[in-house]
Amino acid sequence: MAEPLLEFLVTTELRPVVGLAPEERARLYREERERGFELARSGAIRQIWRIPGAPYRTVSIRVAPTVAALQADLESLPLFDWLKIEVTPLAAHPLSEPPPA
Amino acid sequence: MAEPLLEFLVTTELRPVVGLAPEERARLYREERERGFELARSGAIRQIWRIPGAPYRTVSIRVAPTVAALQADLESLPLFDWLKIEVTPLAAHPLSEPPPA
Amino acid sequence: MAEPLLEFLVTTELRPVVGLAPEERARLYREERERGFELARSGAIRQIWRIPGAPYRTVSIRVAPTVAALQADLESLPLFDWLKIEVTPLAAHPLSEPPPA
Amino acid sequence: MAEPLLEFLVTTELRPVVGLAPEERARLYREERERGFELARSGAIRQIWRIPGAPYRTVSIRVAPTVAALQADLESLPLFDWLKIEVTPLAAHPLSEPPPA
Amino acid sequence: MAEPLLEFLVTTELRPVVGLAPEERARLYREERERGFELARSGAIRQIWRIPGAPYRTVSIRVAPTVAALQADLESLPLFDWLKIEVTPLAAHPLSEPPPA
Amino acid sequence: MAEPLLEFLVTTELRPVVGLAPEERARLYREERERGFELARSGAIRQIWRIPGAPYRTVSIRVAPTVAALQADLESLPLFDWLKIEVTPLAAHPLSEPPPA
Amino acid sequence: MAEPLLEFLVTTELRPVVGLAPEERARLYREERERGFELARSGAIRQIWRIPGAPYRTVSIRVAPTVAALQADLESLPLFDWLKIEVTPLAAHPLSEPPPA
Amino acid sequence: MAEPLLEFLVTTELRPVVGLAPEERARLYREERERGFELARSGAIRQIWRIPGAPYRTVSIRVAPTVAALQADLESLPLFDWLKIEVTPLAAHPLSEPPPA
Amino acid sequence: MAEPLLEFLVTTELRPVVGLAPEERARLYREERERGFELARSGAIRQIWRIPGAPYRTVSIRVAPTVAALQADLESLPLFDWLKIEVTPLAAHPLSEPPPA
Amino acid sequence: MAEPLLEFLVTTELRPVVGLAPEERARLYREERERGFELARSGAIRQIWRIPGAPYRTVSIRVAPTVAALQADLESLPLFDWLKIEVTPLAAHPLSEPPPA
Repeated sequence: MAEPLLEFLVTTELRPVVGLAPEERARLYREERERGFELARSGAIRQIWRIPGAPYRTVSIRVAPTVAALQADLESLPLFDWLKIEVTPLAAHPLSEPPPA
Repeated sequence: MAEPLLEFLVTTELRPVVGLAPEERARLYREERERGFELARSGAIRQIWRIPGAPYRTVSIRVAPTVAALQADLESLPLFDWLKIEVTPLAAHPLSEPPPA
Repeated sequence: MAEPLLEFLVTTELRPVVGLAPEERARLYREERERGFELARSGAIRQIWRIPGAPYRTVSIRVAPTVAALQADLESLPLFDWLKIEVTPLAAHPLSEPPPA
Repeated sequence: MAEPLLEFLVTTELRPVVGLAPEERARLYREERERGFELARSGAIRQIWRIPGAPYRTVSIRVAPTVAALQADLESLPLFDWLKIEVTPLAAHPLSEPPPA
Repeated sequence: MAEPLLEFLVTTELRPVVGLAPEERARLYREERERGFELARSGAIRQIWRIPGAPYRTVSIRVAPTVAALQADLESLPLFDWLKIEVTPLAAHPLSEPPPA
Repeated sequence: MAEPLLEFLVTTELRPVVGLAPEERARLYREERERGFELARSGAIRQIWRIPGAPYRTVSIRVAPTVAALQADLESLPLFDWLKIEVTPLAAHPLSEPPPA
Repeated sequence: MAEPLLEFLVTTELRPVVGLAPEERARLYREERERGFELARSGAIRQIWRIPGAPYRTVSIRVAPTVAALQADLESLPLFDWLKIEVTPLAAHPLSEPPPA
Repeated sequence: MAEPLLEFLVTTELRPVVGLAPEERARLYREERERGFELARSGAIRQIWRIPGAPYRTVSIRVAPTVAALQADLESLPLFDWLKIEVTPLAAHPLSEPPPA
Repeated sequence: MAEPLLEFLVTTELRPVVGLAPEERARLYREERERGFELARSGAIRQIWRIPGAPYRTVSIRVAPTVAALQADLESLPLFDWLKIEVTPLAAHPLSEPPPA
Repeated sequence: MAEPLLEFLVTTELRPVVGLAPEERARLYREERERGFELARSGAIRQIWRIPGAPYRTVSIRVAPTVAALQADLESLPLFDWLKIEVTPLAAHPLSEPPPA
């Protein structure tokens, strides 16, 4: 039986990537999007939304077998050096399984 | 076709309910839990988790046809006067529908 | 020619009114709503919205001939002692009168 | 019947644009102003004011059919990388339609 | 030659005085206003303004021969226990004596 | 009768001007001081003080016929891009005209 | 093989317990200390220190099989309603197993 | 040779003592002052100043053989429950022993 | 008998190292890791964990004979200029030696 | 009789000096240390300590005849542009002269 996965609320904020040649920046953005798709396909990113405003912000529900595994996912992001990421551990809440009325 | 629902990230923090007779407090907590189950059964609360620590904190993904409807759900909570609630509007993010590898 | 009115962004947050008998509290809330309607009818409150969440929060565009007059309007609110009010002075912005395309 | 529009309070703060050649900076400012006029003419920006002080700050009432559409408007701003933008969803408030005295 | 006076920027914020009988509260407010007039007449309060909003806030330019003397003035205020007071020492600025054009 | 002037408390903080050639920086500082003298002579800056510490901070009482006029004064400062400026509108306070003892 | 335990950094701050009869307060403090010894003996609290200052603050390294289990430990504290508790999930760091020199 | 003492910067802020009978409050204040004199006479409080403003604030240089001993001094203060105390450890600085010019 | 060691909670946050040639940056990172191993082997770093998120953050329990000695350890880190480090002194807590049940 | 000196609590934080040639930076650091020794020898810096952590932080007790004179001392520091300095005015506290037991 696979180990139960830990759930996390993860918010990210992307500091503007300045001081890079435009194509270098575009490449990084492409790789970031690609790596994100991999994490989404693998189920490591369960859900993700855009928080409106600037700079770019996201909030996501991520899972991983351990905190270290989650951190490895985050450090694998090409834009890691330009990201501010907060991680909040989550526990189940009784309301998520409401008894029938 | 029902109007598309708006999605919100909602965090709540419950200030300790002091100055009430114990049974009054217990009644409020029961009604709060009951109202929560109703909102969960109706789908208004899509997902909800406990954020560990004190005072009691939750984070949830809630939906409603309008911002006013969401606010009505929140104001219907018996513990509204003891709650600090932050609402963040959410937009879809491309990563939530990753193309096949 | 009446003096040009000053424009202000005004945000309010209502600390829960505790320690009052229920009917006393209901009376205050009614008077607050009544006084609000007067300010709205007089044009002193140009626009007002509810910011979702808890405690009760509003944001409004208010006008007054002077800063002192605005403060008098605010101090006339029955719930003044339970309100946290921030006032930001506003200046016209060129985008508010876009030239024809 | 067009979908009811969502209303937002949007505040912007422009970090000083440094490290660019003067004419490059002037071009960006012109394009930003032009894009702003388009959004104002289209009604996407309903009202906008200058908040006095430095750096440049504005507060505006913006509308859009969805949160994603609002975010697209914001990301279309040429100065997006230099802007700090906060978005607050708005709900109607009873005071905005005062009954006759 | 009297010692040169020290200048201070002093901001005050009055926490709502709750839990007192109305006449007790009114008496305190009267004494506070009375003591304020004394400090103003003595020149200890050079200038004072109301900062709009709630709770009651003021900003003032106060002078005193020493920091201890200023503190004694502040501690003499009947509402001291309900006040949040910040004190910023001031130094002369060259712009305050502009040379003739 | 000239329009009554609006009064403002204005605080400024000067981010260190880095990345400029020394003479360029010295020129900017001279022009800033010159423009300041003009505003002081015109009465737009009524009073100004140095707040001790680093970076350079000032607090001043400024007047202008409108909020927009105040903003124009501030935007005319050569060091505008390096300044953090907060503007607080002021209303008269009864203590500023104490009745005779 | 018992499931690997999760590690958390947990800080607590105790709001002064006011409004209780002295012996009631003393009983609560005794029960809190007793419950603490149980958690320490069980290994749930691995290490705990006093952070000097006021109000009472502690920092501790706690372990639990799941986030929910940790939260249950915290909610079992008699003084839960008077505690502000922050929980930070921890991952192993390479420095904790330095290779021989 | 007595153990070298540790040096600390200690700031205190006294929340207004409300809800106590006047003589009870006066007794507490007297005992607090008395205990303070003991700590000063013993050298545990090396230097102490009043920070102007409200509520009452002090900053002091305190010494103790260990952090636990410092904490015991602080917890011995009769007003401990109404105090917010921050403790900063101090290390010697080369400037404190300037070589002869 | 060696002097009793002082215990500290130390948190570090590493600002992204930008503006350096890649190999220069890699060298610094290697030296930082090497110095960390030395401090761990010497026992100066008792325990250390990774706090998940970005930028890189750690929390550690460090010991040193004096505050100055701890500061010397910190200043010996090659990445000192890119680190934000907070130091909290620790005192023993009674719970760390629970009496037998 | 020399004018009584004003006492100040002064905290400094040194932003890392980046973007300078190493010898330029070393020269600045040497001049800063030299100027510091002068201020210490003159008694302008009465006491100074290192606050552990990063970036470099100090807390000191400084004296000067006027606030302007203190500001002149601070502005004479070669590293002024890289320093964040907060100044708190101090008043004598009764505990600093405890009556005999």
